[in-house]
Amino acid sequence: VRILVPDSPAFKSLHDSAVDFVPYARDGEIPTRADGVVMLGVPRAHRQKLLALPGLKWALTLTAGVDHITSDLPAGVALFNASDLHADAVAQHAVATLLSAARGLHLARDFQRERTWGRFGVFSGAERAGQGLGTLAGRHVVIWGYGHIGRRLEAYLVPFGARVTGLRSSHSPYDVNSALADADVAVLLLPSTPGTKGIVNADVLSRLKPGAWLANYGRGELVVTDDLVGSLHAGHLGGAILDVTNPEPLPAESPLWEMPNVIITPHVAAATSDIEQRAAAFTADFVRQLVRGDEPPNRVDVSRGY
Amino acid sequence: VRILVPDSPAFKSLHDSAVDFVPYARDGEIPTRADGVVMLGVPRAHRQKLLALPGLKWALTLTAGVDHITSDLPAGVALFNASDLHADAVAQHAVATLLSAARGLHLARDFQRERTWGRFGVFSGAERAGQGLGTLAGRHVVIWGYGHIGRRLEAYLVPFGARVTGLRSSHSPYDVNSALADADVAVLLLPSTPGTKGIVNADVLSRLKPGAWLANYGRGELVVTDDLVGSLHAGHLGGAILDVTNPEPLPAESPLWEMPNVIITPHVAAATSDIEQRAAAFTADFVRQLVRGDEPPNRVDVSRGY
Repeated sequence: VRILVPDSPAFKSLHDSAVDFVPYARDGEIPTRADGVVMLGVPRAHRQKLLALPGLKWALTLTAGVDHITSDLPAGVALFNASDLHADAVAQHAVATLLSAARGLHLARDFQRERTWGRFGVFSGAERAGQGLGTLAGRHVVIWGYGHIGRRLEAYLVPFGARVTGLRSSHSPYDVNSALADADVAVLLLPSTPGTKGIVNADVLSRLKPGAWLANYGRGELVVTDDLVGSLHAGHLGGAILDVTNPEPLPAESPLWEMPNVIITPHVAAATSDIEQRAAAFTADFVRQLVRGDEPPNRVDVSRGY
Repeated sequence: VRILVPDSPAFKSLHDSAVDFVPYARDGEIPTRADGVVMLGVPRAHRQKLLALPGLKWALTLTAGVDHITSDLPAGVALFNASDLHADAVAQHAVATLLSAARGLHLARDFQRERTWGRFGVFSGAERAGQGLGTLAGRHVVIWGYGHIGRRLEAYLVPFGARVTGLRSSHSPYDVNSALADADVAVLLLPSTPGTKGIVNADVLSRLKPGAWLANYGRGELVVTDDLVGSLHAGHLGGAILDVTNPEPLPAESPLWEMPNVIITPHVAAATSDIEQRAAAFTADFVRQLVRGDEPPNRVDVSRGY
């Protein structure tokens, strides 16, 4: 079995007596033949060449989302992804930002940069942005897109006293609308598919309670950005946490950068300094299953898009 | 029984057939006689007058710390505090800031204010501040001052994969030093007493591992500020989370405001928008115990200072 892997040290140290691991440069020449290819942080043009290799049987993308891959995937090539690899970092990032919002840490940071002790009354920073300080106790968090990451997030939130509702694709529009209408925070963890693009539009935003927050850790394209800006501007939404945006990167002229209670992180929910090592370990485990003759459980249903 | 309470709506709605609740203005005239006094957010000069009322038997401060009270407390007046009232908010605030530090949210906020999508490589913001992105998984958090709040904090941290060591006053200096030497984050929840003032000095900071963080949610006076600045400046400490400072408020000219990986919140760990309502409910419960003839469990040992 001949498997192409990135040429970073962590992947180059992979070893399996039944496998020929062939390192490739993420921006250089491409080997001519492979049974499988493992991808992490590969630019699109390069990725297209890898996926078009003759005889390729499978591709493993070490990401949770696959929408950047599926349009370039030849028929007959099996696709695997790596939600499990990222579930914990994304869930911890989500809790970090949700707790930060509740505690007004974004406002405290703004005061810090002004060298100002922003505590007049309870916390003038919170009043400045029209936001009270609180905790997650008693907050209803609706997780729209309830897979590996969503379940992990739920497990983290419940001890803080949050009430969590998970929404899957099997839920009816009625269930979805009922849950959203009662949400204090609507968390997006949906994949980007033809059916979910722009799913969060003005109509959906208007169904949220006044003062509710939207948090997107899924894909930027889930949200109609103009509608989001409109709802924030009108004071209907209480705030937004955006790890992904549409377009992405967010252009410097976007009004979102400076809107009150908008917290932006640059698509880093899954990022950890040790990602190469963890991804290589994930790959080793994946390959062991293949060599044993088992199909790894992380096969993507390309027709569903996740 | 005649009990003085703040004249805010939440306290004015207290009712008990065995008690005469007398509201007082936090900045106005003081009633002439009382069995007990309940205090929240009372300026010092006013507090001194309240504590000096003839015949006063007890005082309830609706704070966790009592160091601002004890020096003005007449002999024979019992003091009660309210750690329980604040444990959850302080513990959630602590998790919020610890997770924020691990995820680099303070750096992301700085990028946001520059309208910059700060994701080059993994996260250039982190590299800029010499900090990798991570999670709390596998991190050793040493909680120095392990009471109500510390135990709550431990319960929140453990599901994230953190390893927690709690240090109580019964631990030997050897135990304390051993734990600190292995800490990734040293969390201060100690009360301010003559024995703890300045306890975190250059010697203690040098015992922490290079790159370790200090987080203070206790009292500003626990830390020798010049020594903290020196350790951060030398690059020994990896960063600091400061909800309390010395002096407090932190002066505009302090170098701490702009040091990399210093996260400052203005003594708001216990603050929630509904604090008056929660404090009044705590007071009602406290008074019920008194009326029943039970001593409430939150009596302060003034000789220990907590």
